[in-house]
Amino acid sequence: MKLYFMPGTVALASHIALIDAGARYELIKVDFKTESQRKPDYLAVNPKGRVPSLATDRGILTETPAMLAFIAQSYPSAKLAPLADPFAFAKIQEFNAYLCSTVHVAHAHRMRGYRWVDDKAAEEAMKKKVPQTVGDCFALMEERMFRGPWVAGEVYSIADPYLFTIAQWLEGDGVDIERFPKIADHRRRMSERPNVKRALAEQAA
Amino acid sequence: MKLYFMPGTVALASHIALIDAGARYELIKVDFKTESQRKPDYLAVNPKGRVPSLATDRGILTETPAMLAFIAQSYPSAKLAPLADPFAFAKIQEFNAYLCSTVHVAHAHRMRGYRWVDDKAAEEAMKKKVPQTVGDCFALMEERMFRGPWVAGEVYSIADPYLFTIAQWLEGDGVDIERFPKIADHRRRMSERPNVKRALAEQAA
Repeated sequence: MKLYFMPGTVALASHIALIDAGARYELIKVDFKTESQRKPDYLAVNPKGRVPSLATDRGILTETPAMLAFIAQSYPSAKLAPLADPFAFAKIQEFNAYLCSTVHVAHAHRMRGYRWVDDKAAEEAMKKKVPQTVGDCFALMEERMFRGPWVAGEVYSIADPYLFTIAQWLEGDGVDIERFPKIADHRRRMSERPNVKRALAEQAA
Repeated sequence: MKLYFMPGTVALASHIALIDAGARYELIKVDFKTESQRKPDYLAVNPKGRVPSLATDRGILTETPAMLAFIAQSYPSAKLAPLADPFAFAKIQEFNAYLCSTVHVAHAHRMRGYRWVDDKAAEEAMKKKVPQTVGDCFALMEERMFRGPWVAGEVYSIADPYLFTIAQWLEGDGVDIERFPKIADHRRRMSERPNVKRALAEQAA
């Protein structure tokens, strides 16, 4: 499989999960500095012009929650999700859907406001509210959703690298992670895992 | 199971899927006109203050993509998703993740701009771009993602009621569905299905 990524993006979640799964993969960097994600070569892979994309022998997959569930289901012996328990699996998917549709979206209003407005003043208004909206999301996760020590409780799952990836952005979003002790501790423990260190090193190479 | 819903919202997707699955369910209307979704009784069910929520004997589920996969997996004989084929299942989840994180979010900038700004002029700037952003999403689905006659090809799945639900909003978003012939045809065929008629009638009752 080939994972199209850019450092600093949500592609890190799937990258860590591929390592956790014991998958063989090749990394292909999509250089945002040269706008490679909007050039024909990459749009042929992913017409959305975003990362990540995962090229498999069946075709291309995009969207982090779908890719994470695919990785878990393709490498069942890695036990990255409770695949045979519909409710437990749904709780992990619920967490991942919240990250993708609410938390990541709140964050995107800081740098990608042009997606939703054609107005510089409105982009500035969006930026201004990001510390509050992202902070509110993390408060909800800390208080009501995160079970501990891992997202879903005692067992590590595909929700953990996804939360870790988005928690990387908190300082940039103007949110103090120490307001969320459980999530701060999770980020520290995740960053010490060899698979996470390996993913970050491979992305920096 | 109890489905908390409000007519006109994305709760319709899970409602149709519950009927498709042959599930027994009770409907509970959360009246947005009296702001019931922000009152303590409902926040105890779903602290996000949104619909839908699905109360199961194991606990509450939220987030449409997670609920749809849960319904498919809980009622496998209804064959609402290719659960045993990780790639085919991922393609359906990819479509649903796009609806939830990009299409629904684009739509929400018309009526819910206050989520991301504290500025009336910026909310107006958001509203103005909705026909373009929602139109671009539907163009991508029409041209690159929708396989036909159903979202995932020959077989109906949990992606179909979800697309149908969001396609209900196109007129309100200022987008002419006839620009997207395959999706317009899909919406017509969906609206003729007895299960869809039943869901709409139950919500209107």
